[in-house]
Amino acid sequence: MAKKNVKVLPAARQILDMNAFDAGAHTGALNPLLERRIANVGASAVLFYREPIEVVSASGSWMTAADGKRYLDFYNNVPSVGHTHPRVVAAVTDQIGRLNINTRYLNSVVDLYLDALKARFPASLSNVVLSCSGSEANDLALRIAAATSGGTGIIVSENAYHGNTSIISDISPSALKRRGLPDHVVTVAAPSNAGQSDSIENAFAADIKRAIAELGRRGHKLSAFICDSIFSSDGVYADPPGFLRKAIETVHKAGGLYIADEVQPGFARTGDAFWGFARHDVMPDVVTMGKPMGNGFPMAGLVTRPELLERFCEDTGYFSTFGGNPVAAAAGMAVLNVIDEEQLQENALRQGNHIKERLRDLAAKDDRIAEVRGAGLFLGIELCRSGKRDQPDAEVASSVINGLKDRGVLIGAAGKFGNTLKVRPPLSLSEEEADIFVGRLADTLSALPAA
Amino acid sequence: MAKKNVKVLPAARQILDMNAFDAGAHTGALNPLLERRIANVGASAVLFYREPIEVVSASGSWMTAADGKRYLDFYNNVPSVGHTHPRVVAAVTDQIGRLNINTRYLNSVVDLYLDALKARFPASLSNVVLSCSGSEANDLALRIAAATSGGTGIIVSENAYHGNTSIISDISPSALKRRGLPDHVVTVAAPSNAGQSDSIENAFAADIKRAIAELGRRGHKLSAFICDSIFSSDGVYADPPGFLRKAIETVHKAGGLYIADEVQPGFARTGDAFWGFARHDVMPDVVTMGKPMGNGFPMAGLVTRPELLERFCEDTGYFSTFGGNPVAAAAGMAVLNVIDEEQLQENALRQGNHIKERLRDLAAKDDRIAEVRGAGLFLGIELCRSGKRDQPDAEVASSVINGLKDRGVLIGAAGKFGNTLKVRPPLSLSEEEADIFVGRLADTLSALPAA
Repeated sequence: MAKKNVKVLPAARQILDMNAFDAGAHTGALNPLLERRIANVGASAVLFYREPIEVVSASGSWMTAADGKRYLDFYNNVPSVGHTHPRVVAAVTDQIGRLNINTRYLNSVVDLYLDALKARFPASLSNVVLSCSGSEANDLALRIAAATSGGTGIIVSENAYHGNTSIISDISPSALKRRGLPDHVVTVAAPSNAGQSDSIENAFAADIKRAIAELGRRGHKLSAFICDSIFSSDGVYADPPGFLRKAIETVHKAGGLYIADEVQPGFARTGDAFWGFARHDVMPDVVTMGKPMGNGFPMAGLVTRPELLERFCEDTGYFSTFGGNPVAAAAGMAVLNVIDEEQLQENALRQGNHIKERLRDLAAKDDRIAEVRGAGLFLGIELCRSGKRDQPDAEVASSVINGLKDRGVLIGAAGKFGNTLKVRPPLSLSEEEADIFVGRLADTLSALPAA
Repeated sequence: MAKKNVKVLPAARQILDMNAFDAGAHTGALNPLLERRIANVGASAVLFYREPIEVVSASGSWMTAADGKRYLDFYNNVPSVGHTHPRVVAAVTDQIGRLNINTRYLNSVVDLYLDALKARFPASLSNVVLSCSGSEANDLALRIAAATSGGTGIIVSENAYHGNTSIISDISPSALKRRGLPDHVVTVAAPSNAGQSDSIENAFAADIKRAIAELGRRGHKLSAFICDSIFSSDGVYADPPGFLRKAIETVHKAGGLYIADEVQPGFARTGDAFWGFARHDVMPDVVTMGKPMGNGFPMAGLVTRPELLERFCEDTGYFSTFGGNPVAAAAGMAVLNVIDEEQLQENALRQGNHIKERLRDLAAKDDRIAEVRGAGLFLGIELCRSGKRDQPDAEVASSVINGLKDRGVLIGAAGKFGNTLKVRPPLSLSEEEADIFVGRLADTLSALPAA
């Protein structure tokens, strides 16, 4: 049976990372659940691994498959305080049995959360708009930027991913396949010292300046520069803290907005700060949030200055039916409380540094590891051809991903060449779990044939 | 204290209906929770009523306010099988404590739901894409239409509302304030016999034909006609079933797609059929869903033919982090099961007909009721100046809405003139509750000063 009528198209890199199931390349019969999934969702199927995993339960850092095998989850930054965290589960369970309405009514659960969320931001970012997904938050942020700046030009990093709505797909190079970026979008390389003689901060600001000039040549005044400050899908670039400063100055001088997309680095993941932008000592005009905000409960949002939101709302009515419902607020509140009470930001820093140190020891002995970088529990392991740091090796990345899967660790890759492993476990990771990861990675690398 | 720094802008009509809180028009001190809400969400505040209600719990058709007052919910079509329905609550509670992941992994809870959802549709609409909100579903539907048709022109009804993303706000006349519709969007009046000598079906098809010609004059080939088949925000137009047939033929002949937005009429609400489009015996190319899909759990989606989705996915990668998570699937499955087991489609038809009959009795005695129309538990009560059916009266609608609120019934209004009450209680409404509504409406009308 199997492959007939089962057709999956080549997918964009970021969305699938390097370890996508590809029905076209699949040999042999598909398992019945996989066949059913593809029949149900068709060309929109996006599954991990040559042999996708059927997961049945999860807890903390671990996911359990239908065959009983347990996997350490180093991929997913959504259940960021740990899979099925009892505090979040209890908050949702309690609230959903009590009340689930929209924000046309008052409810103190919602404002308790709005107050708590705002308290994490600089005082000037005092208006919150809650929505359902990071995509929706970025979609709104881009329109706020257009209304504020009067411009149309957008600058993004060259492998950026910011979401799935129409205008956000247009600024997400890594989601585009056959078609290219539209005219109003110009990319810059992620801030790194690759090929630069100047400081990273100066070189990145110069790139932004060139991008603004290029937009000008195309007839587009700058509207916004949007980035996640860890440059997740570009391959994880975090250091030195502060490298965004001059770039943001340049953006502001040109009348553009800086939108900090915290869907990736936000909610304490980098260990150094609660928000990614705060590591760089810069002030965003809009901050967008998503994935880890509700530990998996669908919720997202943005914060901005009141006058920016007001300007947008003069022209366009905005309402989200599900955004800001009290169940989401309860989930979000539990996440904030757990991060504080379990000191997860501190843990992210501690375990992140521990992993970084152990990986650098590994790198000293294995010349396929070109670089280990990142902050807190958001690290990148760049892989290259043996001893050739300037030759990215996506094949070895793919082999490591699949080797780690066999050994019970789930991890993805990113970057223009797909050769950087993204280390992104739950913030509640224990040192024992960190060591399991490093040990299994070492075993996997040892077992690979030398390049 | 109160009003200083508290500024709410005039809002779009549909989004606020007729009964919006307006801080600008508010006299006296704001209650502390209201002041806090406005400080938190700024210009994006969208609250019901001159004095917004603080709600603390809800069950079945009833919501309970902080002051203990109970309200019959005739507004909200989200918790469609009843507020905090125990089956839905149990399904979410069970699944969220077990596993909440994304669709990159296989999980049978998700495919059980996808199978059950697909079974409700014509067999040709065999691919599902799950997302977080109806806005996201419509955003994707519009891009699928563009990829399929090669066109850019969109036809919507003149007071339509289809969601809040950038491209969907552009096709939602009722969400726009100062700015007008963009060039590629042309509106048609909702199908009704107002001022028509021809049949509603023929007249509506002629309108669509004129809209296609107008798009052509502007240089836009037709991409899609999108409508919710109950024309909710236009003021509820349901009869006679079949009135869409020739219009859809016309759309298809012009190479456009018909997108059935089932966010409003879907999931058994009209009583006649599970989907609104099915009442009209027409075949959509894409069907979008939202609000009642998870009874308040944030979830949405679309179904379409596989080749349409495939064409879109050739150019653009699509993935939704939260869309299709197993907790949403469990909620959605519970909703489908409850609709079946409690025979809610049948109940919607029965109670809807009962209310319609009693309202028509009321209309025979009160000449401010111009018309009662609709299907199942989606009815419109059009209000006019005494005895003058062609003179819409938004003021009497507003007075009725506020009078009903005082009497413990929550209801909204729609239509170009804001003069049509939308009767849209949970599908589980009992006959006793239906009678409470009609009784309180009669009391409210009696208590109003004669026009």
